[in-house]
Amino acid sequence: MDSQQETNTMANTAIDTFTDAATTTSTGMVSLTSKYSNRVLVKTIVERDDGGVGLIGERLVIGGWVKSSKEVKKEPVTPAPAPTSDDHGAAVASSPKRKEKDVSCVEILQSRIPFFRTIIKVLSGGSGGGSTNTIREKLEAVLPKPPLPSTLFLQISDGSSVAALQVVVESTLASPSRLLPIGTCILAEGVLDHSFQGNRVVELKVDKILHVGTVDHDKYILSRKRLPLDKLRDSAHFRPRTTTVASIMRIRSSLSFATHTFFQNNGFLYVQVPIITTTDAEGFSEKFQVTTLLEKADKEEPKAAEEIEGVSLDNIKAAIKEKSNQVEELKRSESNKEALAAALQDLRKTNELASQLEAKEKTQPAPSIKTDKINISEDFFSRQTYLTVSGRLHLESYACALGKVYSFGPRFRAEKKESSKQVAEMWMVEAEIAFSQLEDVMNCADDYFKFLCTWIVENCERDAEFISRRIDKTIIDRLQSMMSCSIEKITYTEAVKALEKVTEKIFEAKLEWGVALTAEHLSYLADEIYKCPVIVYDYPKAVKPFYVRLNDDGNTVAAFDMVVPKVGKLISGSQNEERFNKLNTRIEELGLPKEQYEWYLDLRRHGTVAHSGFSLGFELMVLFITGLTDVKDAIPFPRSLGKANN
Amino acid sequence: MDSQQETNTMANTAIDTFTDAATTTSTGMVSLTSKYSNRVLVKTIVERDDGGVGLIGERLVIGGWVKSSKEVKKEPVTPAPAPTSDDHGAAVASSPKRKEKDVSCVEILQSRIPFFRTIIKVLSGGSGGGSTNTIREKLEAVLPKPPLPSTLFLQISDGSSVAALQVVVESTLASPSRLLPIGTCILAEGVLDHSFQGNRVVELKVDKILHVGTVDHDKYILSRKRLPLDKLRDSAHFRPRTTTVASIMRIRSSLSFATHTFFQNNGFLYVQVPIITTTDAEGFSEKFQVTTLLEKADKEEPKAAEEIEGVSLDNIKAAIKEKSNQVEELKRSESNKEALAAALQDLRKTNELASQLEAKEKTQPAPSIKTDKINISEDFFSRQTYLTVSGRLHLESYACALGKVYSFGPRFRAEKKESSKQVAEMWMVEAEIAFSQLEDVMNCADDYFKFLCTWIVENCERDAEFISRRIDKTIIDRLQSMMSCSIEKITYTEAVKALEKVTEKIFEAKLEWGVALTAEHLSYLADEIYKCPVIVYDYPKAVKPFYVRLNDDGNTVAAFDMVVPKVGKLISGSQNEERFNKLNTRIEELGLPKEQYEWYLDLRRHGTVAHSGFSLGFELMVLFITGLTDVKDAIPFPRSLGKANN
Repeated sequence: MDSQQETNTMANTAIDTFTDAATTTSTGMVSLTSKYSNRVLVKTIVERDDGGVGLIGERLVIGGWVKSSKEVKKEPVTPAPAPTSDDHGAAVASSPKRKEKDVSCVEILQSRIPFFRTIIKVLSGGSGGGSTNTIREKLEAVLPKPPLPSTLFLQISDGSSVAALQVVVESTLASPSRLLPIGTCILAEGVLDHSFQGNRVVELKVDKILHVGTVDHDKYILSRKRLPLDKLRDSAHFRPRTTTVASIMRIRSSLSFATHTFFQNNGFLYVQVPIITTTDAEGFSEKFQVTTLLEKADKEEPKAAEEIEGVSLDNIKAAIKEKSNQVEELKRSESNKEALAAALQDLRKTNELASQLEAKEKTQPAPSIKTDKINISEDFFSRQTYLTVSGRLHLESYACALGKVYSFGPRFRAEKKESSKQVAEMWMVEAEIAFSQLEDVMNCADDYFKFLCTWIVENCERDAEFISRRIDKTIIDRLQSMMSCSIEKITYTEAVKALEKVTEKIFEAKLEWGVALTAEHLSYLADEIYKCPVIVYDYPKAVKPFYVRLNDDGNTVAAFDMVVPKVGKLISGSQNEERFNKLNTRIEELGLPKEQYEWYLDLRRHGTVAHSGFSLGFELMVLFITGLTDVKDAIPFPRSLGKANN
Repeated sequence: MDSQQETNTMANTAIDTFTDAATTTSTGMVSLTSKYSNRVLVKTIVERDDGGVGLIGERLVIGGWVKSSKEVKKEPVTPAPAPTSDDHGAAVASSPKRKEKDVSCVEILQSRIPFFRTIIKVLSGGSGGGSTNTIREKLEAVLPKPPLPSTLFLQISDGSSVAALQVVVESTLASPSRLLPIGTCILAEGVLDHSFQGNRVVELKVDKILHVGTVDHDKYILSRKRLPLDKLRDSAHFRPRTTTVASIMRIRSSLSFATHTFFQNNGFLYVQVPIITTTDAEGFSEKFQVTTLLEKADKEEPKAAEEIEGVSLDNIKAAIKEKSNQVEELKRSESNKEALAAALQDLRKTNELASQLEAKEKTQPAPSIKTDKINISEDFFSRQTYLTVSGRLHLESYACALGKVYSFGPRFRAEKKESSKQVAEMWMVEAEIAFSQLEDVMNCADDYFKFLCTWIVENCERDAEFISRRIDKTIIDRLQSMMSCSIEKITYTEAVKALEKVTEKIFEAKLEWGVALTAEHLSYLADEIYKCPVIVYDYPKAVKPFYVRLNDDGNTVAAFDMVVPKVGKLISGSQNEERFNKLNTRIEELGLPKEQYEWYLDLRRHGTVAHSGFSLGFELMVLFITGLTDVKDAIPFPRSLGKANN
């Protein structure tokens, strides 16, 4: 199978022109070659204002994957002679520089071995002095007609742009069956030329193939064009090769950088809050536990079996013990961990053998981990630890020292339900500001949201246009209207009143002061009443987390939600309770485990300050920008109930 | 305890001058007020080239925490009259604008209630027509002498700068005992003035106290000055309030932004690889397991007890069942999760009651989770899942579609050993480049490292200077030399030869071709032989992970390590095996569980391409920049064996 793909040493000489002319050199020329990657990005050509015309005549190396392809056969003029090695050699030799080993040529010759065998057979059968004519007739009778030469038109995408570049390859350079399948990887050198097909402006006329990574057409999931997004989710490792997911992921990357830029420009410091935590940031979350005990239970299983096993297994177990000791020895030697590989491999194999023997002798297989007792005090952290659901509490401790801080990282929910708005592992942006009140942080959320919209309009024009065509035609208008819109701020009480007046729709959940507003309620405000993002604030205290600051009325708390059209709740925030007694009472009222929050109460015991913050569901922001409807399509590797494939 | 801290409505009127003059307005004036935080950052004043002199006369609001303080008593001229409410009122009234409720004034009056009571008592005891003199004598006899007025000099830090601002408060404005303790939070308004103390240039003369967050001096860990860093680790929520840790965290934030800037500027896309994974990225890592089964085991425990319990407990359990149903009902109603709080609180309390009753009746407490059988197929993901040890494999799938990608996120190791170079939860930067070879990625690592050094020199001058004084005097020179140094690239074989020649030192681990180089070996290369960062590449295949590309010699692989002075190995990278058969063989040779890597092999089955990448231990980079020696001081919330306190 090694012939399936081959990588050639890069044609460094051919691209030296560009590498040498890098931006940093004194020549003043702009380098076309992508740094660290020895090729010119498709974006560099097709996203020029002139569509690439100014680069016509340049010798370039292009690398990418075939998006679509077409083969145009050439008309035969005379009966083509059977191809010979010279023919192929000549075709390759037409390339101006030929320093490296020509793998494609060797391979073509190898593929013709049966053909040469046939010639030898016919020639051996003929009489020594047979006329040339007879031999020629015999050859023509037994040999298949050679394929007509053809021209291959490949649309190559390299992920740098939503647009592809047309690459033109003569079939004499490489076998069409290897180049044509969708998904084939190709690295090729040639000269940029005018294109007269469709509305293309330029194309690369290839004279040298540097690498081909073939595709097994029948087994490659992307061989079928345009799989729906939900079908692609189980192939998270392949789906960025689709135009749509690639575009989404470029937008996501751009939103990430916009996030850092916004906060850093506004004097915020980036703080990486912990992922493994002992604090429940909301008091009632469904959490994942982090442990090393299951592995341990797993490993201990053979020991139980040992007692009932025969001699041969005993011997193997003794060997395992010895090898384990060796491994432990190696582990103790600091920084030598790579050297473990060999020892571990040995141990693993012996373990496998033991397992096989055990399986034979045991009546029951082991689909489950057996353990009479899992002792948490023996766990890695000597206590129950969880994956964090929110970084806001931890972030507060940094705000109450450094002033303005933000975080951007993965957060986790083990809620066993299917939802298009939530995955088990999400990314969240959280901000926290000392010496601030609810209004400050609402303004910050407002500015941040608009900054993201503006950033995408200004930096991701082509992706936004493509996504607009493919997913949601309204998004560009929507994004542009966001940049200047005035985000309405209404109290919860006003929101309830506004919704109570609605007659044209009956909401599923009952509506009265004191209940939580459902997704349906909130979306109605943004989609129908205001047709614009809305901030709802001053919620009844029962519907918001324990840490939110109690308002002077004693009934409401200084929390807000920002709701945006199409997506619903995008940002949640609050001024947090800085008064020790009020917070302490609230923790007691809710019956939360006090010892978990001692460090958090500490922030109020010593040098407390008014502070506020918010969190934004990053995948939801991607939905808002792209018009997607399911967050599973907005994150590189979605994790949800029963789904963690890689 | 509520009087311990009070927050006033912000003196918005006082700072309107600056808010209105925000950078975006047409006046062209630069706003001094920090956005979303209603105060002027200390940095804005003290980090000006003129040290703040140009702002003298400006009315400002400053907020921060007391770093150090001093009280200077005023000499008594005549026996001071007992303070009256007028005295205090007058002091506050000296503030030019006084629209808001003056909390500090009210509070001062409240604190004098015992004093007023004494006056009333004395006056009531005196005869109706008693002479004023007698009453005065009586009063003087019973009342304590009022404290002499004093001036408080507070060094205030707000986390925006390593420097503090001197804030001068007269004791008539607020009680010295509340303001003086280290760690007190203060928000105050005043006018910037010349300072004639020490080498300070300016100070804020306060005329209005807007907020005080007091400190319980005896219980506050930072009351003692200059705790060593290792003593601070258990107080991760407080330590950013120390000058050193604040400085480290500003540098860390700056390094994070530099990272994003470097990669985005070079055309890389940011990809968030998954944290929860089923793939072991190295094949032999110590991993944390992610599960929801322990919680379940925990919850099921009461059921077992139920069978042996009496009637009263049974009743409670029935109630729990009913309440649980209610909770489930609420959970099913999408997006209504805040409404759960009340129901869950109710349920939790009932559960607690049940637990208490159970504890009484049961002989043994439950320090451990009991469960006869943990069935992995019932786990959240229906299979064993882990916290990722490295994002490189997942990142490859994006490189093989989008070209140049990077990741920056938390990675986890459950190694049960103490190490100053590793914590259980670290942040890593990973990059992956399609169409690249080992040399490309070594150059990229080299450029990235130098970019970070340059960034810190250019953007964190004051923090670097401070850290240099406090931790390591050589760091500024070292950083500057890095910006222009030529990083030596040597093969593993050359490294072994160079180390074999060393006579002045005997290494702990034996040295011969084929062994892994230990931390001691690597550090010797960078610290002693080259006195500069060194890249060692082309390692023996046995000491590097399964995915590294086999070189043509069949013995070495295209891996590299970049070693830097003082820290040791900072970056590890490799060209990864893109040839299906070679990779497949390696996985089999090492006895790795093949099914885990099917998706990874897929990348070689379809459209494979030469690609390379590296990873940088972010905390190690912080060590290199700061001269710290333990990564636990370089990450906001360190997690290590037995340590996860919040």
